[in-house]
Amino acid sequence: MSNNGKTLYSKLFDHLEKTRSIESAMQLCEWDQETYMPKEGIFFRSLTLSNLSEIHHKLKTSPAYKKLLGSLIDLKTGEIIHSDLSAKDIQNLKVLKEDFDKQSKLPLKFVKAFTKLSSESSFMWQKAKEHSDFKSFAPYLKNIVKSNQKKAAFLGFKHHPYDALIDLYEPGMTTEVLDHLFIKLKFELIELLRKIKIKNKKFQKIETYSSFHHQMHLGRNLLEAIGLKPEFSRLDTTTHPFCSSIGPFDIRLTTRVIDDDFISNIYSCLHEGGHGLYGKGVSKFSLGLPEGQSASLGLDESQSRLYETRLGKSYGFIEAMLPFIKEHLKMPNLSLETLYENINKVEPHFIRIESDEISYCLHIILRYEIEKALIEGSLKVEDVPKIWNEKMEEYLGIIPAHDSQGCLQDIHWSMGAIGYFPTYALGNIYAASLFEVFKKSHPQFDEELKRFDLSALQTFLQKNLYDHGRLLKPLELMKKITPEGLNPEVYLDYLKDKYSILYGLDS
Amino acid sequence: MSNNGKTLYSKLFDHLEKTRSIESAMQLCEWDQETYMPKEGIFFRSLTLSNLSEIHHKLKTSPAYKKLLGSLIDLKTGEIIHSDLSAKDIQNLKVLKEDFDKQSKLPLKFVKAFTKLSSESSFMWQKAKEHSDFKSFAPYLKNIVKSNQKKAAFLGFKHHPYDALIDLYEPGMTTEVLDHLFIKLKFELIELLRKIKIKNKKFQKIETYSSFHHQMHLGRNLLEAIGLKPEFSRLDTTTHPFCSSIGPFDIRLTTRVIDDDFISNIYSCLHEGGHGLYGKGVSKFSLGLPEGQSASLGLDESQSRLYETRLGKSYGFIEAMLPFIKEHLKMPNLSLETLYENINKVEPHFIRIESDEISYCLHIILRYEIEKALIEGSLKVEDVPKIWNEKMEEYLGIIPAHDSQGCLQDIHWSMGAIGYFPTYALGNIYAASLFEVFKKSHPQFDEELKRFDLSALQTFLQKNLYDHGRLLKPLELMKKITPEGLNPEVYLDYLKDKYSILYGLDS
Repeated sequence: MSNNGKTLYSKLFDHLEKTRSIESAMQLCEWDQETYMPKEGIFFRSLTLSNLSEIHHKLKTSPAYKKLLGSLIDLKTGEIIHSDLSAKDIQNLKVLKEDFDKQSKLPLKFVKAFTKLSSESSFMWQKAKEHSDFKSFAPYLKNIVKSNQKKAAFLGFKHHPYDALIDLYEPGMTTEVLDHLFIKLKFELIELLRKIKIKNKKFQKIETYSSFHHQMHLGRNLLEAIGLKPEFSRLDTTTHPFCSSIGPFDIRLTTRVIDDDFISNIYSCLHEGGHGLYGKGVSKFSLGLPEGQSASLGLDESQSRLYETRLGKSYGFIEAMLPFIKEHLKMPNLSLETLYENINKVEPHFIRIESDEISYCLHIILRYEIEKALIEGSLKVEDVPKIWNEKMEEYLGIIPAHDSQGCLQDIHWSMGAIGYFPTYALGNIYAASLFEVFKKSHPQFDEELKRFDLSALQTFLQKNLYDHGRLLKPLELMKKITPEGLNPEVYLDYLKDKYSILYGLDS
Repeated sequence: MSNNGKTLYSKLFDHLEKTRSIESAMQLCEWDQETYMPKEGIFFRSLTLSNLSEIHHKLKTSPAYKKLLGSLIDLKTGEIIHSDLSAKDIQNLKVLKEDFDKQSKLPLKFVKAFTKLSSESSFMWQKAKEHSDFKSFAPYLKNIVKSNQKKAAFLGFKHHPYDALIDLYEPGMTTEVLDHLFIKLKFELIELLRKIKIKNKKFQKIETYSSFHHQMHLGRNLLEAIGLKPEFSRLDTTTHPFCSSIGPFDIRLTTRVIDDDFISNIYSCLHEGGHGLYGKGVSKFSLGLPEGQSASLGLDESQSRLYETRLGKSYGFIEAMLPFIKEHLKMPNLSLETLYENINKVEPHFIRIESDEISYCLHIILRYEIEKALIEGSLKVEDVPKIWNEKMEEYLGIIPAHDSQGCLQDIHWSMGAIGYFPTYALGNIYAASLFEVFKKSHPQFDEELKRFDLSALQTFLQKNLYDHGRLLKPLELMKKITPEGLNPEVYLDYLKDKYSILYGLDS
């Protein structure tokens, strides 16, 4: 073993930083496409994204990069070549080798065509959703499914082609684990929902209209209160809210504003805010290195769901937030009880992102079952609306009146992402476990929350999650934080406890 | 001569289209930096721009491109190699060869460092301007000057290093031509200004406040009326207004809104609107080819100044615009005479973009003299504020109270652009000649203008200017339109006629 590893490692860092900056340009193109781009800009934008994606892919798979990476870690055996690297450097190298293995399996031509297809499909989806016209979107979805089947074949898999796809978003996850997990969740959630329905408990509805301007102002203030300062973040509006960490100090959040539903905007903001805090906490100056990236989509989602639901919909948080709402939305007489009930009422909704905590994972399970079937070829794209509606009725007891309330509601498929949805359910389960560990380690949190002091939570998350970057696989990381690892019981217990009280159920 | 030129030419087209799409990503990064980027995003953005600029430079100078271009046109002799190309293809190839010659002279390392410096300097300039703190900006300006001197040396020049720089923005232009032109202009304009001052004529001032919202609404409506539809364009606000053609159907304009000066915003919009119409008219589907690009900065400026001043500040246009202003700014009693006088009153202003038509070119000449002296080394950066103020007093009779009203007002130097300013004066001269030719060829325009019908002007510009792209050099193109070519007399006559009437001067 020679000892010029540090020099080579620093060259590798520069290369990855460059790769990350191209990614940043792509993210900006995508953010702009959803926020401010004039609509006829789309055709040239697709071309731009396709070219950037080609450059990005080349940087990640170029002979020069292969040589550089290979001079630090043996690309066949995984052996570390130099003796002067830190344990963290070595961890980074191991993850980079895994990435390289995956990337190399996808031909450049395929990657380029895939990006172009995604960009065009997203645009077509937006139009199809507007007019609730699934037929106009179906040819694009067919292509997306076909391309994902190809992708799975390129990447390789042991048991199910879907395993190759979910692994891209949640490393190490498989259909076997998910099938097992989701059967349990589905059974218990449907049961809980049934009990709640029987109670037929009605809460007093808050009837109010809040202007776009006031709601955005409230959103920005809440985000600042949870730690997202305007110096390094911003909030805009899009059809489908998202968060994009364009740079370590450039976090872009978006929300949707509905004038007679101020609650929707608040939780959109808190959701994306959770992603944003992770993006801000994790990236810092390790640009492009695994240590500077979030661990997985599921863990990223654990942060959004933690801020949106586990923390954000808790009694304590709502109590702390109440003065903000009273002030910004001019509702001086709003009572805490009414607000808490309105936020947490269980009422199956057609739209996933508007769903209550009990219905939410059922939405995910429905999508998982459909996309798994599409990928294995046991379901045709044409039949998606029918199956969607049938499952909605079976799991949630409601049937969408049109497809924009149903299978056209989400952007993900149009972006080419199949295997992505399960991470949303995983996020909820991780979040519940993380929050449980935190609360046990810091029992005075409830008191601090009254002053909107979230610093202890931030410190906990920084140390236990953010600081690990992507150096461990999600399940390894979860096991480090809590010995149970992936345990749906903590999540189900939390739901049962909370909603038994709210709805007066027998436990 | 073989005849597979068409195939090779189509490959060249693909390569240039790709290059153009990277340029588009850079333009978006720059637009975003000025409009919506959180301020701490700047450091990573600089890196992104520097990397994109490197990729762009490589695409324009790569061995592959050289080989492709060289297979169509002999890079030494300029001879065309294949017999099956059209006259237009051949013109494109000749311009591309010239571009290639220039680009190849700039080392990649230099280009990269220059882009990074520009991005950082723009940011520092913005802060320096805010606090009127020239000292904090001076080190950056020194670097900018040094880098431009280097650039001139790389590019080569016959008589003056500044010639190499102006040639980048206005191909074929030299200090010799400019010195000659500007001496005449300076003399005549100072004389005209003197006569106007003596008259000491006062007009009734319009005292009003118009909200940001109303002014932006008016701006958007005016832009739509001159042909910039929201489907392919948008209007935002920045410190320094600009126009960026991010794609053939994605024209981004920006303006500045001052609540007690609605006129400023209107003419900002019309100015950038003129650029936008050129960008829209010229690019179409010839992405990356010279035939799809504007001829020069001077000719681009001829379009902005045509819409802003020559057309936009004419009696007929103001008459046609009056109903828009009355409606959007809620000023039902505004009279045409008062509006015309307020728009055209001559009152030397510290700020170039707020200047009346008489002062405007004096602002440019001042900048030209300063930057020429900086480049030749006869003026130190430290002395810029002093010299600036002395010249302001000499030419315009006013002295800025602080540097943000003086030498810190413009973004150009901070962006690394030296040799750019003269194109603003050239634009005015070109615009006057173009409009003269148009009016002679279409005498019924005044009548049409009353209905806000600008279609004849659009057709004229499309045919005589836009359709030529960048296939001819500015002076060649001007000679094609009017036998006099570059003739300041037409411009000076227009100014003398208009302002003699407004101010009752003896002719």
